[in-house]
Amino acid sequence: MDNRPIGVFDSGLGGLTVIRALERTLPHEDLIYFGDTGRVPYGTKGNDTIVKYSEQIVRFLRGFDVKAILIACNTVSSVAFEEVCAQAGVPVFGVVEPAVEAAVRTTRGGEILVLGTSATVRSGAYEQAIHRYLPDAGVRSRACPLFVPLVENGHFAAGDQLAELAAHEYLDSFIGQGVDTVILGCTHYPILRSLIAKIMGGQVELVDSGCEMAVRAAVAMDERGLLTDREEPGRQNFYVSDYSEDFTRLAGVLLEHSLAGYVEKTNIEKY
Amino acid sequence: MDNRPIGVFDSGLGGLTVIRALERTLPHEDLIYFGDTGRVPYGTKGNDTIVKYSEQIVRFLRGFDVKAILIACNTVSSVAFEEVCAQAGVPVFGVVEPAVEAAVRTTRGGEILVLGTSATVRSGAYEQAIHRYLPDAGVRSRACPLFVPLVENGHFAAGDQLAELAAHEYLDSFIGQGVDTVILGCTHYPILRSLIAKIMGGQVELVDSGCEMAVRAAVAMDERGLLTDREEPGRQNFYVSDYSEDFTRLAGVLLEHSLAGYVEKTNIEKY
Repeated sequence: MDNRPIGVFDSGLGGLTVIRALERTLPHEDLIYFGDTGRVPYGTKGNDTIVKYSEQIVRFLRGFDVKAILIACNTVSSVAFEEVCAQAGVPVFGVVEPAVEAAVRTTRGGEILVLGTSATVRSGAYEQAIHRYLPDAGVRSRACPLFVPLVENGHFAAGDQLAELAAHEYLDSFIGQGVDTVILGCTHYPILRSLIAKIMGGQVELVDSGCEMAVRAAVAMDERGLLTDREEPGRQNFYVSDYSEDFTRLAGVLLEHSLAGYVEKTNIEKY
Repeated sequence: MDNRPIGVFDSGLGGLTVIRALERTLPHEDLIYFGDTGRVPYGTKGNDTIVKYSEQIVRFLRGFDVKAILIACNTVSSVAFEEVCAQAGVPVFGVVEPAVEAAVRTTRGGEILVLGTSATVRSGAYEQAIHRYLPDAGVRSRACPLFVPLVENGHFAAGDQLAELAAHEYLDSFIGQGVDTVILGCTHYPILRSLIAKIMGGQVELVDSGCEMAVRAAVAMDERGLLTDREEPGRQNFYVSDYSEDFTRLAGVLLEHSLAGYVEKTNIEKY
């Protein structure tokens, strides 16, 4: 039994979909979220920079005596996972492996489609991980660079014409091509899951990388006796490196409910 | 007569549309471009940070012995113009005033629409400047947050469905409302000028803030004897603080021709 909080971090606010997943999987846990909104995006930055930023965030999170760290950021999970583990001193969970394990379990025909940002698709991290489990898997990848700005600007509801048009542009060429599993390889994409599911068709399974990470973390922490024994809902503290004026609106979109918790801007560069 | 180069900077690559405008207005001038691609976007950052970044860039540009500095970035022009002037030691031109002067000259009925990023629209910089010239002007503003990602991901050609749908969403409510002048208050937006003109109708004048800055700079530099006497085409050097893998493609989109010049990544944080 361990009543310390769990730390979650991302390059921005997308990782709030992981907070949402944790609310369902581990509703009694206290959560500390850090979003590096002042330095987002990470995908275009060099590896040295990403390692440096990640190490600063780990130092920041350790100040809260967290009992585990979840990396909600695809870029950090791919580029700086080992450095984060080395520095964390507590169990660390990345976003790529749990999603890949779920996809490998789910796929029937071995035809997997990975959707992500341009940086994630270019990194090849999901393909490489899938091929470690299933060397013969047919892995296709599609960068969907408009999905993040669409979600962030409110275009995600059923029937939104812009979101539908963009999703058709990205997905139509994969329909009827044998794909049976789609990895949502970006923390923003769960907000578009209904739309993606509708276009890809009912036979196709969607794997939400944030949800899978939350489940993986829950199981591993249970095994190590790291879960809380409290029965009231966990508290949430949110830290960002910069505010945008529509922070509260955007947080509500990604959490799929209104923000409720302590919010503070912090100077991450001093860590 | 002065054969030194002109410096142009922006938070990212959008300012390349200003390079394109300078090619037309001052084709014989050598140009040094700096795009802060490693720290873009500026619009969400605090004023202290924007001033610090701008001062680093001015120090960097002074290393090339530039004879003038053009600020292609709306955020810097609004937030750090005086600091840049104080440090530059050469004439400095911002992007807001020339556009506003052009709009004020152009408008017949005093009904002006400002299009920009969310940060630019929130700043109110264009409205305030317009009202200094025309206190009774009817100024409306519209943030078009999807225009930058659309342009950067190739959605700008005539007939592009996503660009058309987004433009209609942003502009339809202003059609037939008496607007006679539209300020393109973001360096990416000239790439969408045909589409915006088509939707707003032939009676509406578009003011391209980058073009107006180039014209203003040309006139002012001519008056001060700062133009070159060379007759061959000027050379272009491009510096960025980080490469994205599609830098060359994106530069071609914004320049409206293939990139031709020296390109280098520089560590701006050491300036």
